[in-house]
Amino acid sequence: MELYSGCINKLIEELASLPGIGEKSAQRLAFYIINMPGDRVARLAKILTEARENVRYCTECFTLTDREKCPVCENPHRDHKIIMVVENSRDLAAYEKTGKYDGVYHVLHGCISPMLGIGPGDIRLKELMVRLESDVAEVIIATNSSLEGETTAMYISKLIKPTGIKVTRIASGVPVGGDLENIDEVTLLRALEGRVEL
Amino acid sequence: MELYSGCINKLIEELASLPGIGEKSAQRLAFYIINMPGDRVARLAKILTEARENVRYCTECFTLTDREKCPVCENPHRDHKIIMVVENSRDLAAYEKTGKYDGVYHVLHGCISPMLGIGPGDIRLKELMVRLESDVAEVIIATNSSLEGETTAMYISKLIKPTGIKVTRIASGVPVGGDLENIDEVTLLRALEGRVEL
Repeated sequence: MELYSGCINKLIEELASLPGIGEKSAQRLAFYIINMPGDRVARLAKILTEARENVRYCTECFTLTDREKCPVCENPHRDHKIIMVVENSRDLAAYEKTGKYDGVYHVLHGCISPMLGIGPGDIRLKELMVRLESDVAEVIIATNSSLEGETTAMYISKLIKPTGIKVTRIASGVPVGGDLENIDEVTLLRALEGRVEL
Repeated sequence: MELYSGCINKLIEELASLPGIGEKSAQRLAFYIINMPGDRVARLAKILTEARENVRYCTECFTLTDREKCPVCENPHRDHKIIMVVENSRDLAAYEKTGKYDGVYHVLHGCISPMLGIGPGDIRLKELMVRLESDVAEVIIATNSSLEGETTAMYISKLIKPTGIKVTRIASGVPVGGDLENIDEVTLLRALEGRVEL
């Protein structure tokens, strides 16, 4: 039994290995791609490669970007004295979508999780502490309200407290156990407004 | 507000334009791809392009393949006198997965749909009639049991009847393992009409 020919099978396999794409979706996608105009496929392939090759970490906040500094860190109209700490670039994007936050960010790329063996040294915490040596007025901790996110928030607040810098946590208003990227903008804003000092 | 940098935005947009991939999935996929090893991304891009460039129609049954003839048509152990007519290559794959059918196929690439303005001339029907000029014992019509699939089946059977070749239609009825209470009335009635003596 040979379902499809070599290169179709390979394409289906490759697509099915991506997260959230099952065998059926991979099949549907593969046939869609095969029927796409050749130049669109070429463009898709080029964009994939370019994104992978050009993306690096912002030297300031460590979000993923294709320049040395990300657009937020490069923007002189943002308040560089307020740093919001998030777990990943998607969470940063979620807050950017609200359009109301005008501070800058710090992307941890993960959170402390003893269960998964991820300690404070495995996320971008040292880099945050280095940033706090310059003039910073407030650190807003916006890790997820999961167990790991809360643990990380507590850990960071304890770490920062001795420096005298104000540390706040976005309010619960964000449903417990919720992933920031899936939460509507109104809830995100309310959580920002209701932030409390830790 | 600039959510991500240029090439990440472009990648998300491109992924979101594929069928069944929404904005959230596109975002998740894009970040997954950016974090994949560079050589895996290069391979994905290459496979995409190759599949698009090399795939063509089997000269015999018109399924999508990367050779002149598909593996089924090239197989001398298959019964080339029995032709199963299907709407597309995915339906062919579905029957191949059963591992029990040993005839060959004919892929129509669509079905007759007056609603969508698709007539008999828009699917690979002429090509089927040409194949019937050689030695064929039976044509099994396995179009979907939708309105369009049934219309197409009726049309094909009328077309073939004068040639004296046996024409059959796959049975429609209650799917194996299906719960009667969850099955639509049309299917239930059809299962009743098509009942066989035990």
